[in-house]
Amino acid sequence: MAFPKQVRLVEVGPRDGLQNEPEPISTATKLELIDRLGASGIRHIEAASFVSPKWVPQMADHREVMTSLTRRPGVVYSALTPNLKGLEAALECGVEEVAVFGAASEAFSQKNINCSIAESLQRFEPVLERAKQANVRVRGYVSCVLGCPYEGEIDPAKVAEVSKALYQMGCYEVSLGDTIGTGTPLKAKRMIEAVSRDIPMDKLAAHFHDTYGQALANLYAVLEEGISVVDSSVAGLGGCPYAKGASGNVASEDVVYLLDGLEIETGIDLDKLAGTGTWITQAIGRPNRSKVGVALATK
Amino acid sequence: MAFPKQVRLVEVGPRDGLQNEPEPISTATKLELIDRLGASGIRHIEAASFVSPKWVPQMADHREVMTSLTRRPGVVYSALTPNLKGLEAALECGVEEVAVFGAASEAFSQKNINCSIAESLQRFEPVLERAKQANVRVRGYVSCVLGCPYEGEIDPAKVAEVSKALYQMGCYEVSLGDTIGTGTPLKAKRMIEAVSRDIPMDKLAAHFHDTYGQALANLYAVLEEGISVVDSSVAGLGGCPYAKGASGNVASEDVVYLLDGLEIETGIDLDKLAGTGTWITQAIGRPNRSKVGVALATK
Repeated sequence: MAFPKQVRLVEVGPRDGLQNEPEPISTATKLELIDRLGASGIRHIEAASFVSPKWVPQMADHREVMTSLTRRPGVVYSALTPNLKGLEAALECGVEEVAVFGAASEAFSQKNINCSIAESLQRFEPVLERAKQANVRVRGYVSCVLGCPYEGEIDPAKVAEVSKALYQMGCYEVSLGDTIGTGTPLKAKRMIEAVSRDIPMDKLAAHFHDTYGQALANLYAVLEEGISVVDSSVAGLGGCPYAKGASGNVASEDVVYLLDGLEIETGIDLDKLAGTGTWITQAIGRPNRSKVGVALATK
Repeated sequence: MAFPKQVRLVEVGPRDGLQNEPEPISTATKLELIDRLGASGIRHIEAASFVSPKWVPQMADHREVMTSLTRRPGVVYSALTPNLKGLEAALECGVEEVAVFGAASEAFSQKNINCSIAESLQRFEPVLERAKQANVRVRGYVSCVLGCPYEGEIDPAKVAEVSKALYQMGCYEVSLGDTIGTGTPLKAKRMIEAVSRDIPMDKLAAHFHDTYGQALANLYAVLEEGISVVDSSVAGLGGCPYAKGASGNVASEDVVYLLDGLEIETGIDLDKLAGTGTWITQAIGRPNRSKVGVALATK
């Protein structure tokens, strides 16, 4: 057991959490969400996605979001940029960090981004190069690290291979996504062990989904391994696109409650964060998927 | 780390899960629930509560439930018996195991069973004696082991003291209840360490609530300590009476999914169990609080 003393939370609610919402959410609401999250003490917020509005209409206002948000000192506001075009647009908006999104499953890569894993890595190369020129950090996502909706089981060696490629290409951090939430603690530990043979532990992040209720147990298990960066979404925004009505992203409030209990520092004010979760779920008419949020609001 | 090879699940849905339901549930539905749970491979089912119908109207049919249920070989059907009167009634119904319910919090004991902890232990003595005469096993519950709705923090030493008293009195097993679900893994570990100084680990059970989403992380932590008996409720039936609308009992399906992933044997068929959760929640018009249940039903 070697729990980290501090954990950095990467809040993905404004991007990952909102991107699949079918009803348009106003830019003002997105900006308020981002601002409230910063006010609660979160220091890393994924704010937008520079993808084609044809594919993700909810993120069509990415330029306005990125240029209008109130930048708090010490807070990183990042954006997803799947290709060079997206990156150029993001750079025009003064973004300081971007992210690319790969997969550890061939079938998922084909269905989700319409190319093989190898092709996706080739596409990322010019993005990484251009970002480096512009002095912008790049975060790499790997999805399906504990299972795939099409392939089922995923070999930890495959996750390690894709992660290593992203890291060697210049990603400063690799976020390991249990996209369908089927992972359990033993599997999560084994995957982290495999990936951390090639990449230092402090360059890895856990991005776990709570679809099968396992996210916090999995996080506990990988915190024991030394993971110190955790992705989460306020109020568990996002759901699971592969099981309608089921949970997706683990809720930030529930993660912070866990970390507080483990005496791990986050710098986050749980009450403010929970208030933000209550507010945004009411604003967009969604159930609050944070158990902590619901418990604090009803007790 | 010393995970147990096997875990015994104690299913509390038919009693703890249903007792606070305001609308009457038919005896036939209760009997079918108990039978389906047995058919899914669960080997220990808390079936009824021999309390006054004045206090718990939903359990008024305890005699009929206990005498009408189909006894499957190898399955224990137990009942809660808060006092000698309840025990006598349960014995008349041929019960083979009963349970008594204490608390680690003075304030909770006073508000919940209207006496001090010391008085409650005195009341249990004749129950334990009579049960011993009748060759009936007694399980002891201790509530508020990780926090109290009135007192807040509870000293692990207090939990150990009450648990030891129940064990010395003759309870064959002590179930440690995080009644309000505020516990986190570190706290859960410390509590188990304190209690297991006086009672062998294999005589202890974890009864955790998921009100703050921590139940599986807490279970994972105490499984690491060697706990091998877990209480849970199918579909998370029960809610939390101290935070309306919030979760209570951890869902059996989610626990079995965790245990399956840890390669710990339970003898339970997860699909059958999840089907039972879907059926009972539809039958009584409640949301399914098992994430595994919802994910399996919607994927």
